[in-house]
Amino acid sequence: MPPIITLLTDYGVESTYPAQMKGVILGRCPTATIVDLSHGVPRHSVNTAAFMLASAATAFPQGTIHVAVVDPEVGSERRALAAEAGGNIYLAPDNGLLTLVAHSEFLPGTGDRPARVVAIENRRFFRTEVSSTFHGRDIFAPVAAAIAEGAELSDLGPRVDRIQRFELPLPEHEGTRIKGRVLYVDSFGNLVTNITGRVLANHDPAAIEVHIGGAVIHGLSHAYSDVPAGLLLAYVGSAGLLEVAVNRQSAVLRLGGGIGTPLVVSLAP
Amino acid sequence: MPPIITLLTDYGVESTYPAQMKGVILGRCPTATIVDLSHGVPRHSVNTAAFMLASAATAFPQGTIHVAVVDPEVGSERRALAAEAGGNIYLAPDNGLLTLVAHSEFLPGTGDRPARVVAIENRRFFRTEVSSTFHGRDIFAPVAAAIAEGAELSDLGPRVDRIQRFELPLPEHEGTRIKGRVLYVDSFGNLVTNITGRVLANHDPAAIEVHIGGAVIHGLSHAYSDVPAGLLLAYVGSAGLLEVAVNRQSAVLRLGGGIGTPLVVSLAP
Amino acid sequence: MPPIITLLTDYGVESTYPAQMKGVILGRCPTATIVDLSHGVPRHSVNTAAFMLASAATAFPQGTIHVAVVDPEVGSERRALAAEAGGNIYLAPDNGLLTLVAHSEFLPGTGDRPARVVAIENRRFFRTEVSSTFHGRDIFAPVAAAIAEGAELSDLGPRVDRIQRFELPLPEHEGTRIKGRVLYVDSFGNLVTNITGRVLANHDPAAIEVHIGGAVIHGLSHAYSDVPAGLLLAYVGSAGLLEVAVNRQSAVLRLGGGIGTPLVVSLAP
Repeated sequence: MPPIITLLTDYGVESTYPAQMKGVILGRCPTATIVDLSHGVPRHSVNTAAFMLASAATAFPQGTIHVAVVDPEVGSERRALAAEAGGNIYLAPDNGLLTLVAHSEFLPGTGDRPARVVAIENRRFFRTEVSSTFHGRDIFAPVAAAIAEGAELSDLGPRVDRIQRFELPLPEHEGTRIKGRVLYVDSFGNLVTNITGRVLANHDPAAIEVHIGGAVIHGLSHAYSDVPAGLLLAYVGSAGLLEVAVNRQSAVLRLGGGIGTPLVVSLAP
Repeated sequence: MPPIITLLTDYGVESTYPAQMKGVILGRCPTATIVDLSHGVPRHSVNTAAFMLASAATAFPQGTIHVAVVDPEVGSERRALAAEAGGNIYLAPDNGLLTLVAHSEFLPGTGDRPARVVAIENRRFFRTEVSSTFHGRDIFAPVAAAIAEGAELSDLGPRVDRIQRFELPLPEHEGTRIKGRVLYVDSFGNLVTNITGRVLANHDPAAIEVHIGGAVIHGLSHAYSDVPAGLLLAYVGSAGLLEVAVNRQSAVLRLGGGIGTPLVVSLAP
Repeated sequence: MPPIITLLTDYGVESTYPAQMKGVILGRCPTATIVDLSHGVPRHSVNTAAFMLASAATAFPQGTIHVAVVDPEVGSERRALAAEAGGNIYLAPDNGLLTLVAHSEFLPGTGDRPARVVAIENRRFFRTEVSSTFHGRDIFAPVAAAIAEGAELSDLGPRVDRIQRFELPLPEHEGTRIKGRVLYVDSFGNLVTNITGRVLANHDPAAIEVHIGGAVIHGLSHAYSDVPAGLLLAYVGSAGLLEVAVNRQSAVLRLGGGIGTPLVVSLAP
């Protein structure tokens, strides 16, 4: 079974930088299957990338090596990390990118706290010449290839006990109300929240109300087309989280807001 | 020969949703070669996707599995289809996406009416948890992988006799005039019409006139550079269909219009 | 080791044209690993593509086949070239695309003058039907696959002694000043210049001044984060060339300009 290496960056979908990472990987691990998670992370948006990484990684088979490089402090003293969690490997700068991978409250299927994290320091695995601005190509790519070829995390550098995490908004339960926030806006303009479908599962879907951006949505839907085109709906989306959308249109355009926007869910008393 | 699976969606080129489909495929068929046809279909534009699918599929070797998911009614009662046509397999929601694949009047090299179509119903091939909003990942991807691993169409579900097709504009021949319409606008802004090069082949190229958007183009060209930069030209394009372009610029910006825009071709009497 | 074929075009990241090239390649060389260098070259911008090709190619292992198609004169008498340089193969129209690949003054790691260049003429390797507008699919893709399968350059057509090159601005040294120009603007808006890090290597980084667009940058930085967010910096970038950036922002938006913009570097006397 050929090793799978995924790439997530903010390099831009028109950039050759992702290809340069692939060239380095293929030079060291010619059998690797390389998959782009996305290269369209909004520039330097570590928290957006953290969600994209954690939610997309769940679809890959165990043993996948995920490389995530959104790295405004490349070339500085910030550490580079290699983490093992849930049978997969994650490589990323130590800037919060692994926050959601490591957080069991959120994405179903992820959330195993990393079993092991090391700082990537062993230059033996790097490219011979390491630039100060493109560690994706010069450090992360060759290290991913080395792991695919059998290197152990312990070969890469010393163990790390504490990694950077950004503060993740936790839903607040107050009686029959849950106060949540938008975690992510997807490519359709759907608003993905921090409220899991799990906490809604034992409530009557028809009696649930979602209050967001001045609008009220009555009842949980199943499919977009449960409501007429142009209307708001709420549903448990493909990441297992409550989402708000507009059928055939964009909820973020309709409601404004974005990552961090608050919402309130009312459950039947 | 590793199986080839192509993906065509409106998920957006910056989205991780295509990657999630790939993760599922690789988990079930590690040797698959996965190719993106495009993830830039205009959102929910089934007729644009139908053209992209049919025209691009002709370039792939026989036996390719094409997965097309532009699916505004995902999660509703709309069926999911698996079709065999011309030695290839097509998976798509039953919403018109297969209209051009199945239409022999148009794209040279396609147009074999599907030999067999089934409704995808056998949950054995689905992911264990099927979301209501992401059948690309939870149904189409694992079914494509299953076919690549040897599943037969007849394993997937019952035979279907009639599929959804949108009305495809047919060129109208009136003596020495052909009335046609624009089928597709490509990434250069070239207008691809529903008039095949075949019907023009026995006419003097120099005597052909194309009337579109108030402009008249005299003669069929061979290459864009047959006319000076900034001028309109007409030619038989790479899909075997009459196209209208502006050398070094965009015909859709010059002429306006888009899918459905009418044109008239005058042949020599 | 599976053959690697890279693709660089201006077809657009949402287009199916790159996929059509891949379909043709996989039909003739099923084991090929195909990597997109980029399909986001600004339309018809041969000099941008020349930089993208030369800089990205350096990251790939020897023996890679690079296919670059930015080809406004497709279908005309312009030649198609296959070149060997530095152990790699380059296929491109003869319009200047190979200018930087062949130029040893610039990109470290490239610059071997092509050992051999041939005109691609042998129709035996083409698709049966060759369109006049899509040689990427009908000529370059199948020829790349043929080379991957063992065809020799000498099988493709006659040797060529002189290829098209655009005039590449050379840095001008005047005492302790170097006059240079911007060669390329990357996806972050960083300005990549024609001044190599090599010529700066023996000078005190702190004493170097870069004058560009009315601004003066004092000293060479190492990492973006060496300066506060929003400030200009100069550094030797990942292509081995002097670059100008704004930490966390875009230098091209700050300074204006683009390819060809002049700059002056002052070295310590």
